[in-house]
Amino acid sequence: MKKLINNPDNVIKEQLEGMQAAHPDLIKVNFEPYYITRAGGPSKGKVALISGGGSGHEPMHGGFVGHGMLHAACPGEIFTSPTPDQMHLAAKAAHGGAGVLNIVKNYTGDVMNFEMAAELAMADGIKVQNIVVDDDVAVKDSLYTAGRRGVGATVLIEKLCGAAAEQGMDLEKLSDLCRTLNQNARSMGMALTSCITPSNGSASFEIGDDEMEIGIGIHGEPGIERKKIATVDEIAEEMTVSILEDGAYTRTTKEWDFSKNEWVEKEVTDEPFKKGDNVIAFVNSMGGTPVSELYGVYRKMKEVTDKHGIKIVRNLIGPYITALEMQGCSITLMKVSDAHVKLWDAPVYTPGLKWGM
Amino acid sequence: MKKLINNPDNVIKEQLEGMQAAHPDLIKVNFEPYYITRAGGPSKGKVALISGGGSGHEPMHGGFVGHGMLHAACPGEIFTSPTPDQMHLAAKAAHGGAGVLNIVKNYTGDVMNFEMAAELAMADGIKVQNIVVDDDVAVKDSLYTAGRRGVGATVLIEKLCGAAAEQGMDLEKLSDLCRTLNQNARSMGMALTSCITPSNGSASFEIGDDEMEIGIGIHGEPGIERKKIATVDEIAEEMTVSILEDGAYTRTTKEWDFSKNEWVEKEVTDEPFKKGDNVIAFVNSMGGTPVSELYGVYRKMKEVTDKHGIKIVRNLIGPYITALEMQGCSITLMKVSDAHVKLWDAPVYTPGLKWGM
Repeated sequence: MKKLINNPDNVIKEQLEGMQAAHPDLIKVNFEPYYITRAGGPSKGKVALISGGGSGHEPMHGGFVGHGMLHAACPGEIFTSPTPDQMHLAAKAAHGGAGVLNIVKNYTGDVMNFEMAAELAMADGIKVQNIVVDDDVAVKDSLYTAGRRGVGATVLIEKLCGAAAEQGMDLEKLSDLCRTLNQNARSMGMALTSCITPSNGSASFEIGDDEMEIGIGIHGEPGIERKKIATVDEIAEEMTVSILEDGAYTRTTKEWDFSKNEWVEKEVTDEPFKKGDNVIAFVNSMGGTPVSELYGVYRKMKEVTDKHGIKIVRNLIGPYITALEMQGCSITLMKVSDAHVKLWDAPVYTPGLKWGM
Repeated sequence: MKKLINNPDNVIKEQLEGMQAAHPDLIKVNFEPYYITRAGGPSKGKVALISGGGSGHEPMHGGFVGHGMLHAACPGEIFTSPTPDQMHLAAKAAHGGAGVLNIVKNYTGDVMNFEMAAELAMADGIKVQNIVVDDDVAVKDSLYTAGRRGVGATVLIEKLCGAAAEQGMDLEKLSDLCRTLNQNARSMGMALTSCITPSNGSASFEIGDDEMEIGIGIHGEPGIERKKIATVDEIAEEMTVSILEDGAYTRTTKEWDFSKNEWVEKEVTDEPFKKGDNVIAFVNSMGGTPVSELYGVYRKMKEVTDKHGIKIVRNLIGPYITALEMQGCSITLMKVSDAHVKLWDAPVYTPGLKWGM
């Protein structure tokens, strides 16, 4: 297996040991069960922002724990949801007295387990809200989820909500912000190669030497179309147009109602992008695609957004939500207000994302 | 060809267009010939720090142009030296009145062309010094160079000298710093896969499914040993021990003597690492290896440095000097003083490296 690993059974443990050894000033890794908190302990009086999900998408989420971003992250086994137990203990460890917001990517296991974890933490007297991220326009209902998958928008939301939490925003407003940002964001991914999970040692899907897969998710799950490999201009245009011309999207959310003390389901509709929108543009590597090629994607994407009258006011380019060593990329566009841009520019200091301090 | 590109002939141009579109606040790309300077123009009264080399190692060098790092970078075609013309014009564009320091990786073409460029700039009345980086302990004399190749140390040197230049260090002192840092640094690389250059469309070397190559350079040039793939512990240990137990290294440097007005050659010897040294540790991805695996490398590397009584005081982990999409990694250790650590911690704000502002 062409990977820099030892025994496949110990990959998560050893990589977390390496991460802890590298960043003792930033993070503290708990090993039984796995969760990562800030080195300095809970942020007193601030909402604790927590996320988690299967490993293999590094630096997300553990790499985003630190000032201005997450307070805790729960890594599962590779491409496997963490358990309610992990999430519950992470919430207790990170809680600073002002409640917990769980940012949950829309995968069946993640959603279910974060709900159970929220209930366990609430039984301990901690106020918890869960907001689900579902930004992938490629596929509705897949191998891993009902509804749209949660992908690239998660990174942007963790940055923006992290800045707001750092500034002392309360749980209700932070939940509203998180929900709004998710509604404002859409993503699409593609792959040139598959990736290999250490546990099974073989490619998660087969793909020909002259083929690519459009619309893949971050677990290498199949997309909307397998076709002959195209130029970067064709690929970037197809993805950007799919995002920009995606229509209204309605899903049922499930959030905790603190007045009724129960989960309440609600229909929520996202509006499409429109001329004049300001966006943060995120061009992500699936892991094996180098940043030089991402600049090729950015070039064409910006031509298309310009043509649609959409203005890119900030960008992020690099491997931030990956699928191990998969070659490919994703594009995320998120409509933002001036206030959101200020949150973007606020200091962040984590193993995976740094600026401003 | 499994790459996100258009016509292979236009790869550099289009990727630089994408880079310019993404970072107009940080960099300005000149297209005929190619060079990248800071968006704000020359830094008046400060030494202009310049580097360059073949493309394909992104984000180096163009991604390191900005506050606290380089003033200009000259990208050649992929894995091909830039021309004296590019370097000369970059020097003229970036010169702020206090001279130019060229950081030159030890490849025959780079060294020769930077010498010619220095002479051209000096004919214009610009004071120029060239310092050659040669930190690769794996191979002496290779396909691309006589003596040790210049690899990972280049990134650390650009950061540290960039901070010193920002603080107003003069050309002579900055040259001394650059030379010392190179003498303090040693690196070694390995590959699990080859990479494909767009122009020829095929792997730069063949490697079996169960093989790895130890001691490769950043152009995929063969290393010291082809063998059966080992565990990350074995690989990281072999590389770290090779670096730490590497003996004294003597090479002939060639620098400009401003009193004699000519190039002067001199024998310079690096001392080996010794117990009690403080180091910056850099675990680099060759492009296709994800950061999670780099943490596995870091874990074992730190065990080995600890055992040797070497203290890691700062680290850098990620894809910073790559070989396109090659899977593999390199380790660089650089002995540093407290003053060097302060330069490391100083603010940097470039497309490829950011902190502190």
